[in-house]
Amino acid sequence: MPQPNPDWVKALKPSGPQGSELLQQERAKSDLDVDQLAVFMFTSEVLERNAKLLEILSSHPVFDKSQNYFRGRKDRFKAALARAKTLRQLSVKHQWSQDEYEAANDLISEPTPYGLHASMFLKTLQEQGTPEQHKLFLEPAQQYKYIGCYAQTELGHGSNVRGLETTATWDAKDKTFTLHSPHLTASKWWIGSLGKAANHAVVVAQLILDGKSYGPHPFVVQIRDLETHEPLPNIHVGDIGPKFGYNTMDNGFLLFNHVKVPHVNLLSRFSGVDAETGAYIRPSNPALVYGTLTFVRAFIVLQSGSVLARGVTIATRYCAVRRQFQDRDAAEGEVGETQVLDYTMVQHRLLPLLAASYALFFTGRAMINLYQANQKQVAQEEQGAKKGPGGDLLADLHAISCSLKAFASTTAAEGLEVSRRACGGHGYSAFSGIGSWYADYLPSVTWEGDNYMLTQQVAQYLLKSARAVLAGKAADNGISRVLAEFQRRQDIGAAFDVLDDDQNLVDAFAWRVAFLTFEALKHRDEDKQSWNSLLVDFWRLSTAYAQYQVVKNFYEALQDDATRSSLDPGTLEILLKLFQLFALHHLTGHASEFFTSGATTVRQIQLARTKRTLSLLEQIRPHAVRLVDAWKFPDWQLDSSLGRYDGNVYEDMFHRASEVNPLNDIVIDPYPESAVLFRKDAGAELKSKL
Amino acid sequence: MPQPNPDWVKALKPSGPQGSELLQQERAKSDLDVDQLAVFMFTSEVLERNAKLLEILSSHPVFDKSQNYFRGRKDRFKAALARAKTLRQLSVKHQWSQDEYEAANDLISEPTPYGLHASMFLKTLQEQGTPEQHKLFLEPAQQYKYIGCYAQTELGHGSNVRGLETTATWDAKDKTFTLHSPHLTASKWWIGSLGKAANHAVVVAQLILDGKSYGPHPFVVQIRDLETHEPLPNIHVGDIGPKFGYNTMDNGFLLFNHVKVPHVNLLSRFSGVDAETGAYIRPSNPALVYGTLTFVRAFIVLQSGSVLARGVTIATRYCAVRRQFQDRDAAEGEVGETQVLDYTMVQHRLLPLLAASYALFFTGRAMINLYQANQKQVAQEEQGAKKGPGGDLLADLHAISCSLKAFASTTAAEGLEVSRRACGGHGYSAFSGIGSWYADYLPSVTWEGDNYMLTQQVAQYLLKSARAVLAGKAADNGISRVLAEFQRRQDIGAAFDVLDDDQNLVDAFAWRVAFLTFEALKHRDEDKQSWNSLLVDFWRLSTAYAQYQVVKNFYEALQDDATRSSLDPGTLEILLKLFQLFALHHLTGHASEFFTSGATTVRQIQLARTKRTLSLLEQIRPHAVRLVDAWKFPDWQLDSSLGRYDGNVYEDMFHRASEVNPLNDIVIDPYPESAVLFRKDAGAELKSKL
Repeated sequence: MPQPNPDWVKALKPSGPQGSELLQQERAKSDLDVDQLAVFMFTSEVLERNAKLLEILSSHPVFDKSQNYFRGRKDRFKAALARAKTLRQLSVKHQWSQDEYEAANDLISEPTPYGLHASMFLKTLQEQGTPEQHKLFLEPAQQYKYIGCYAQTELGHGSNVRGLETTATWDAKDKTFTLHSPHLTASKWWIGSLGKAANHAVVVAQLILDGKSYGPHPFVVQIRDLETHEPLPNIHVGDIGPKFGYNTMDNGFLLFNHVKVPHVNLLSRFSGVDAETGAYIRPSNPALVYGTLTFVRAFIVLQSGSVLARGVTIATRYCAVRRQFQDRDAAEGEVGETQVLDYTMVQHRLLPLLAASYALFFTGRAMINLYQANQKQVAQEEQGAKKGPGGDLLADLHAISCSLKAFASTTAAEGLEVSRRACGGHGYSAFSGIGSWYADYLPSVTWEGDNYMLTQQVAQYLLKSARAVLAGKAADNGISRVLAEFQRRQDIGAAFDVLDDDQNLVDAFAWRVAFLTFEALKHRDEDKQSWNSLLVDFWRLSTAYAQYQVVKNFYEALQDDATRSSLDPGTLEILLKLFQLFALHHLTGHASEFFTSGATTVRQIQLARTKRTLSLLEQIRPHAVRLVDAWKFPDWQLDSSLGRYDGNVYEDMFHRASEVNPLNDIVIDPYPESAVLFRKDAGAELKSKL
Repeated sequence: MPQPNPDWVKALKPSGPQGSELLQQERAKSDLDVDQLAVFMFTSEVLERNAKLLEILSSHPVFDKSQNYFRGRKDRFKAALARAKTLRQLSVKHQWSQDEYEAANDLISEPTPYGLHASMFLKTLQEQGTPEQHKLFLEPAQQYKYIGCYAQTELGHGSNVRGLETTATWDAKDKTFTLHSPHLTASKWWIGSLGKAANHAVVVAQLILDGKSYGPHPFVVQIRDLETHEPLPNIHVGDIGPKFGYNTMDNGFLLFNHVKVPHVNLLSRFSGVDAETGAYIRPSNPALVYGTLTFVRAFIVLQSGSVLARGVTIATRYCAVRRQFQDRDAAEGEVGETQVLDYTMVQHRLLPLLAASYALFFTGRAMINLYQANQKQVAQEEQGAKKGPGGDLLADLHAISCSLKAFASTTAAEGLEVSRRACGGHGYSAFSGIGSWYADYLPSVTWEGDNYMLTQQVAQYLLKSARAVLAGKAADNGISRVLAEFQRRQDIGAAFDVLDDDQNLVDAFAWRVAFLTFEALKHRDEDKQSWNSLLVDFWRLSTAYAQYQVVKNFYEALQDDATRSSLDPGTLEILLKLFQLFALHHLTGHASEFFTSGATTVRQIQLARTKRTLSLLEQIRPHAVRLVDAWKFPDWQLDSSLGRYDGNVYEDMFHRASEVNPLNDIVIDPYPESAVLFRKDAGAELKSKL
């Protein structure tokens, strides 16, 4: 560790009004009830639970974050492994529920080598295993005797699951499956928790019976020795190397050279192979598996609001502390620099993201509700209930979850980078806390359905719905009503009052979806355009559909009785402004779609972009700090100099740089002709002890 | 180092057509003359020079890149220091010119601790020092006895240079300046080469004479001992810690506690203090300093095309090798998956960036020419020549360089991230080679003028030009003609044939600039809107101005005789399509500005977005790989598995992951109850030897 700062440095303070004073002033400017809003969003039980977890974690030395930003890959992984183990021990000791365990993980805010064991491995065994397989695999896995992962993606195949190359061939003679990797591209790849931690894997492989392929199926395979943890014979497994982020996780590769597993290792709750006849047993209800994917996407949507809010919290607080330049129209004699948050250019970048974080929060909540309603209906149908007039709720939910997953994760990822840049030069420092968070989040735009790929599925559903409407066979559901209303009214015209009527604003988003749907339908069905030539249109359409859902969910949440009775009118008013800002921001950002469709006039767009947006920014501005405070991120979780609750930004930056940074342990030899690099490295000794 | 792969793994090949075959097919599909185009862009002298440099560097063990992606901060810095020293030694040995030294740095592609010494420190001493100061400071600096940096930015002040807090107070008694940091925020911060390497710094500090401040001035200050390299008394200096990228550079902090330097240490070619009277000597020609800033920006524009081309090269090659899904309209019985590059959604993301890389190349070249013309004019004016009718060429150049710096660096940075994502999941691997390149490039959007801040200066110039046009006092230069033409024709209407006439396409971009300028002028001068309320409009205006410059420069370069005589008609035709794609991509991306201004109709935009763009993508597609080949990046420079010239993508990914990755040296203990983390670490020994 470097030397502490000399006394004359310790005596220095930042110039001008202190960050702490500025944030106090910010909080005094607004009367938004932060606690009321936070309780409404998270419930007081959850807030109290999180506070307890925070106390346990932050007082335990293994979770000390002070070295996180300085460590290389191996040391980061080592620390993450230690944390994973400790977290598991704490979880047993305190008898945490799954929710509590996940909340603790959130506070730590980095993936650990147990990540995929605790989620996908256990979940897959649970959902796709028979009672016998639960006993055989799930129980030891729950006790962390088996540590596992979910090995689906391969070096050559990600999105196209049907194209997976790993094979599992049934051998009737000894009643085993032989797992094999016929090509290099068959190597499992990107598999979390596989690289170093797992001794078992659920391997998704092509099931081959009698030379015929029955498509991808899940097999439980032991891959490392339970004692030595060395790979088993004919298995080649390891870590795939460093990544843009996610470096505390051991994403791995895995190759098989004719490895046999018993019949019972094919997870066979839904489908399987008759051990006696070698015949294939077909799945009874594929909808259930389909449902899980939908849940994962709904969860990504729910999470995206809070992911984004973290970056927005940091940037908003720092932009209130940072001052730069005098206002150009400042009166003669005025002194002092302007808070960066007062510049409209900064507000224009940051406040729509603040609005988006809330919009995504309400949308995620609505998604989870929709998912639960669907699960209930599926259960009723399983018990013999007739399908309702709402059509195929699962297909509807699937399309919504695909479009929203793509939109929400892209919005969160890109919004984090905008937040980082809004912090100016200091946003580039690791101590901003945004860069690593962004880098760790980025895979979300690719996994669980690549965001571009997903948009095809959305378009397919919307085209199908539109065809049904045209054929007079519309289902009784939301999107069909939107499409039918457009059909009815398209020649009359829309004339939505998007500037002064919030319901009209929502309707304009619906109108645009319908317009783009019928346009795409015409290209496909009448003009017979190839599917490939329409992919860009489909992507636009899916984005429009997602934005409509978000705008609608946000607005409906604010009209909801539960909301109106939990929040005071002032808070509701501010949230309504966030809704308007979010909607108008996207309306002006996709202006040409709105007026090509006739949803708005050019004049409305111009007014929305200028006067109306400026006025909303001005009205939201005083509440910005309190609005991010309501997300209730503890400093320990943010781990950011710039986003500190108390505003002591510069002191913290300086402390971390000068008194924690291990590069200040060393003295170099700077001269080109000298072969000596480090003359002194006070930290080398320390490091060898980690 | 991990064990080599077992024999059964070594025997595996990727499935299907090999990457090498696919890239050969790609290259066979197009008859674009790659070498002719490369020679036209770079000259054969430069290409040959680079080949020689590559041979020297790639055969020297200190420049071995194989461990780059695996190292932590300290080890990366150590390697970069070794490389900096060796590069300097090679430079002396081979008597490299400045151009050759920079080209070698480009091939190594990472910042080194000598970076700011070799650029800003030497340049500032050269340009701002007197002959006496050259002897005293520049000569030992050129010999690397003094190693320096340029310390301007502070913890509390970046963009606002006038707000810097460090003071240099003249003491008439002993004829010295006292450097002092009155606050913590006065600490120099972000200073490249300061953290560990420098023993001297050019410190920009407020010059105080007799209690009065004369603004920021440059002082040469010794900060570390020339023997021990330890900081001198009352100087607190160190590295600022890890960053999102740029971690091979030792960006530093620096605080002074009343440190005295002699009178000669104020660099005083342009202004200074009379040592006898203590009177301030005013600068004679501030325009020269202004010129340097402009040159730095012009250079960033020139560089941006190649920065972006690197990411586009990697993504284009990989998207030609990667195959995923069958075409949905594929005929029954067709087999094999589609190359990802054949999907219009991928083309839509990638090919406009390919076009942008060429557009920025031609624009950068035009910028440098403009800069040189300006330098010539300044020199002539210094010798007494009268200003021409073109008005203030420097102000014009300044505005162009500001708008283009902002647009070009944003386009390159964001384009790299789009390229990375176009590689799907593997884009996230460090071995893609894009992530680290992007992370290292990102500061360019902030330094040398924050990209948002700069747009104010552009708007200010355009407003001023518009006022002159309205007052009938227009200068005889390009932008004034554009503004005047708009004035003349705005009531008649534009009616540009943007789909079929390339000059009209350029004119539409000019028209939009004029429209936005007069609109902003009305808001400011007639409606008396505050400057702050117009910042977003100014940013839009500056972007429009930059896009017009790029479109115009690209088009003019293709009409130029030198171009037409160097390239065969087929190549020119392909470049013209890139021009059209670039222009139409931005036209449709800012559609509402184009038809609000009356530059185009809504119908034109629709056609541009759909049929016209699809047709351009289809026409450019076969030449995509050859078009990136023409940038001539050696594999050694790209350091990317995905972007390999030979297409052996998967083999290289697998090799790096399994046989180079140090995380595969270790075996962990995976069980939560065990306190052991690493059971075996074969690499630990190796590492302690680095």
